[in-house]
Amino acid sequence: MSVLVVGSIALDSVETPVTSGEDLLGGSAMYFSMAAGFFTDVRLVGVVGTDFPDSAVDLLRERNVDVTGLQRAAGQTFRWSGRYHSDMNQRDTLDTRLNVFENFSPEIPEAYRSSEVVFLANIHPSLQMEVLRQVEHPELVVTDTMNLWIESTPEELEAVIRQTDLFVLNDTEARQLTGEANLMVAARQLRAMGPAYLVIKKGEHGALLMSDDGLFFAPGFPLEQVTDPTGAGDVFAGGLVGVLDQAEELNDTLLRQAVVYGSTVASYNVESLSLNRLKHLTKQEIENRYEQFKAFTRFTLN
Amino acid sequence: MSVLVVGSIALDSVETPVTSGEDLLGGSAMYFSMAAGFFTDVRLVGVVGTDFPDSAVDLLRERNVDVTGLQRAAGQTFRWSGRYHSDMNQRDTLDTRLNVFENFSPEIPEAYRSSEVVFLANIHPSLQMEVLRQVEHPELVVTDTMNLWIESTPEELEAVIRQTDLFVLNDTEARQLTGEANLMVAARQLRAMGPAYLVIKKGEHGALLMSDDGLFFAPGFPLEQVTDPTGAGDVFAGGLVGVLDQAEELNDTLLRQAVVYGSTVASYNVESLSLNRLKHLTKQEIENRYEQFKAFTRFTLN
Repeated sequence: MSVLVVGSIALDSVETPVTSGEDLLGGSAMYFSMAAGFFTDVRLVGVVGTDFPDSAVDLLRERNVDVTGLQRAAGQTFRWSGRYHSDMNQRDTLDTRLNVFENFSPEIPEAYRSSEVVFLANIHPSLQMEVLRQVEHPELVVTDTMNLWIESTPEELEAVIRQTDLFVLNDTEARQLTGEANLMVAARQLRAMGPAYLVIKKGEHGALLMSDDGLFFAPGFPLEQVTDPTGAGDVFAGGLVGVLDQAEELNDTLLRQAVVYGSTVASYNVESLSLNRLKHLTKQEIENRYEQFKAFTRFTLN
Repeated sequence: MSVLVVGSIALDSVETPVTSGEDLLGGSAMYFSMAAGFFTDVRLVGVVGTDFPDSAVDLLRERNVDVTGLQRAAGQTFRWSGRYHSDMNQRDTLDTRLNVFENFSPEIPEAYRSSEVVFLANIHPSLQMEVLRQVEHPELVVTDTMNLWIESTPEELEAVIRQTDLFVLNDTEARQLTGEANLMVAARQLRAMGPAYLVIKKGEHGALLMSDDGLFFAPGFPLEQVTDPTGAGDVFAGGLVGVLDQAEELNDTLLRQAVVYGSTVASYNVESLSLNRLKHLTKQEIENRYEQFKAFTRFTLN
């Protein structure tokens, strides 16, 4: 199958305690696609400016990403600039320039409209809804969001959540959206809003999966060096949704494994600046670390 | 076998966002013993004042705890008073009165000196060392500590760590003791100080085990309501060491299972104030939640 992703494509300037760089490949749809492409075919819808390098488009093509839906508009690509604290769970946004993204309206190419799996990356809920209107019969709608939309457009966001099968968000967002401090209570309330499946990302502390089949938890992979956390959540989602998309049938075991694959790819991504690690990552390296995840969490003999 | 534990026994006053109480049973050795007693015979060394209730001593006896080493001194029992923030990972100590604990000198009864497993709960490192001098041939020395000793008596603490086989501490303490922000680097350095086995407790985020056999991670059990986190670390250690003590042989699988049992008992403990939940907890309930832990972390078919 093919997963349709709609989201931002950016050129980032990032400063972490370990390194820094400018005009780095970024954006939710970019990170997602580079991860999902390890597992399945990806159909990308987004917009870039005239300054966006052709080499990056080639990179996407090489990673099984169909770029028919990639619009190139007159002007500059969306730019984000941020600085991480010594505790890299904290960061400050220094500058955001929407540029060509300001007037972005997602146009789903004819060939994409039959997509069965859709990933609505973190963009304005009204744009997410526009995407859903253009997709014929999605079997699995996966939605991400951020604090900005929770605060500024809660009703539009809730309308999207009602049409969502798998809602992916982080722990802070889950608490913010429900007003509940306890994550398990928040999770129950989020599922009551519509999604049959819920994944709450806890950064370095792992990810929690919740469905009618029960609870599953995957820890963050232990790393001696984190270089750049940017995009980790989108890469996680890319691994997760990529694995789901290429499977015959959605079931609890597949979902659990998909969460672990998501954690695995995300753990590689934070090892280098921007997409530098993911560019050269191999499927074999992913499988190796997936096996290490088993050893890391197993406590039964059988 | 029997595990020897030396630590504090206290009467606590605790205020959490959910509840509060005064003159509650507490102290590291008290919490440890009530947990370890589910799995093995416990030999307790500590001191209480004339105000310590006989009913609490009976409680210990009923939980397989030998109280021959429990000294009763003239004066008041050690008292601690604390208040938890709405984020219960944070708390303020309101008052600490050492009382009879101020002049406590651990005297290990003759019958305890052949103990093969020793748990040095969080007390002054010079007292921990006094205990070790009195135990003949301990096969497994398990040590806990706290920020106070890391700051005030680092050299005495390091001397104890050199004689420690399994070092149990929390993530903040691990970073503080090594000066390393990255937990995996800190863990490597801590093991280089002596202990073959290391467990880093991460509160609600679980616990990490490190040895020559590799890494293991057990998540915190997900709870919809946390009532009182007091003593959770000591209860975790009680489950962990209790399981190790009753086994024939120490190996990686046993250690992993012991960490999960520790997490299991600790997850029950935080459900009620003080030791209220542990008083009435049953072995069957522990086994039930241990099975839930399996379901919570399993992602392979076999």
